[in-house]
Amino acid sequence: MPPSRADRPPRRVGEFDLIERLRRLIPAAGAGVRTGIGDDAAVVSLPRGALVTCDVQVEGVHFRRGTSAPGDIGWRALAVNVSDIASMGGAPRYALVSVLLPPGVPLRDVEAMYRGIGQAARAHGVIVVGGNISRTSGPLALDVTVLGEAGRVLTRGGARPGDGVWVTGTLGNAAAGLFLAHRPRVRVRGARALLRAYRRPSPRVRAGRALAARSAVTAAIDISDGTARDLAHVLDASGVGAVVHLERVPVAPAVVAAAQAAHLDPYVWALGGGEDYELLFTARPEFETSARAVARVAGVPVTRIGEIVPRRAGRWIVGPAGRRTPLRPAGWDHLVTRSP
Amino acid sequence: MPPSRADRPPRRVGEFDLIERLRRLIPAAGAGVRTGIGDDAAVVSLPRGALVTCDVQVEGVHFRRGTSAPGDIGWRALAVNVSDIASMGGAPRYALVSVLLPPGVPLRDVEAMYRGIGQAARAHGVIVVGGNISRTSGPLALDVTVLGEAGRVLTRGGARPGDGVWVTGTLGNAAAGLFLAHRPRVRVRGARALLRAYRRPSPRVRAGRALAARSAVTAAIDISDGTARDLAHVLDASGVGAVVHLERVPVAPAVVAAAQAAHLDPYVWALGGGEDYELLFTARPEFETSARAVARVAGVPVTRIGEIVPRRAGRWIVGPAGRRTPLRPAGWDHLVTRSP
Repeated sequence: MPPSRADRPPRRVGEFDLIERLRRLIPAAGAGVRTGIGDDAAVVSLPRGALVTCDVQVEGVHFRRGTSAPGDIGWRALAVNVSDIASMGGAPRYALVSVLLPPGVPLRDVEAMYRGIGQAARAHGVIVVGGNISRTSGPLALDVTVLGEAGRVLTRGGARPGDGVWVTGTLGNAAAGLFLAHRPRVRVRGARALLRAYRRPSPRVRAGRALAARSAVTAAIDISDGTARDLAHVLDASGVGAVVHLERVPVAPAVVAAAQAAHLDPYVWALGGGEDYELLFTARPEFETSARAVARVAGVPVTRIGEIVPRRAGRWIVGPAGRRTPLRPAGWDHLVTRSP
Repeated sequence: MPPSRADRPPRRVGEFDLIERLRRLIPAAGAGVRTGIGDDAAVVSLPRGALVTCDVQVEGVHFRRGTSAPGDIGWRALAVNVSDIASMGGAPRYALVSVLLPPGVPLRDVEAMYRGIGQAARAHGVIVVGGNISRTSGPLALDVTVLGEAGRVLTRGGARPGDGVWVTGTLGNAAAGLFLAHRPRVRVRGARALLRAYRRPSPRVRAGRALAARSAVTAAIDISDGTARDLAHVLDASGVGAVVHLERVPVAPAVVAAAQAAHLDPYVWALGGGEDYELLFTARPEFETSARAVARVAGVPVTRIGEIVPRRAGRWIVGPAGRRTPLRPAGWDHLVTRSP
């Protein structure tokens, strides 16, 4: 977090007072919660099947306090877990937030972080039902667990030869936003949306639920590691190969402009950048006819970028002029070295 | 963790290999798990209501690697969360394990830690369905989430005047074990059980379920902070007072002997020591007739140590010769200062 004016350090507020202050900043009660924060465990309702995931954000590994605002750190810690529920086709419902707090973090920054958690929670209908705060002598860390309601579940393992490979939204936005965050003098039309994509990613919850409701959709994953790497996870789990057509990969004009400023091929960001938190999914050919309806419900375009092939047919990107290059987990990085 | 012979550091094993190695050390599949480790989220079944809790153990705050064996650190991180499910009357079912790993921790210690997690999980019928491992530049930390199946739920808020105040087992064992762990030359009969109570606490899952099945039981909490402090949590949540009779507080002969070696009143440990992970509960008078049956099912004695009174009647300990002293959260520490 950036430095802010001196507040009393949280230690001097007292743990119970601190928890009470922070609790007001997050949605802590609502439908389905029988017992929330304040008892040994929360009691919640998930009758049709529970989706559960946790992911930790560690200062110095996943973020830096010098370059990320406290509210953005909080938002992201919740959002990345909501995205994991979205990619399984679930409805996020409840969260638990564990925070490791180093000495000297100003109270106002801790509150701003919880405000960010609360904003992301409200944006996705999530109630914070528990968690804990502990001192640490090391870096700030947020470990968030999100519970969701399962319907039909989309795993990574259902892709079959003949399926299309699809993505929601446009790719490379977060990587372009990261570039722009470090180069405030670079002017690009649409920069604000790219910065937001990086700082406050919007998990595709409505898209995930709409996709799970279509039996033609066979597998899904969220794009956190990078499109190529996350596609590889699906191919590994499904035991299949794939061909991706580079010219079909959706890239926003602002990303193209930012890539130009960075002297990079925009597909480096789109296929290798990661952290877009769009969904990558596979679907049988008949999905084509319902793609537009899904996009309307989800509020985001869906684009077919390739197709699943038998495992023995390999993993390929079809690039400019039909040239095939191997699909590597790092994405589309060979162009960087070939045309510097 | 104590030093061990040099192994390859986990970093050099590679994250995916490490996860695969560690996964073999824990129960990772079983009834109720539709999708476990390896997808974006786990899919589990908790149709009658989900109990969920998380607690973090941080090196330097909750344990020291120099004095706690890696297996004990792992056991405890899972057990303290199982205890929170037990105190609500639930059946622990699934766990997620987040580990922050500083550089230089030997692989064999990481494996020993996961073996400890696995042993505690097996002992309580828990399946590990997810989690994550992240690098950190700071202390080792384990954040564990446990999900349980709820039946009738015991909260902290149900105690009413006229109820008895009860505990399972005997108190002060963990504090005595901590003392003995630091004084290996002190010889006490029964020391092994005290050391185990400190190093590998046994959450009272069967007791919690048996208590929740009795409608006469009105509130419960697990004894983690200390008997007096945890009783205060119940009194706060229920809006009542209590009287505790010191001579009824169950203390094992080995704890008395260890306290003698430490020149302490054993009730200092029994009321203030904490980390016993016994249950403290309140029950209407008719519970007396079923106490023996509950003890048999639970495999642990239950003892009435006092009674709930109206809030205005206050919070008291009745000590030797009927003398009343205020019940303070720290427990029975005034004797230490009065008779040094």
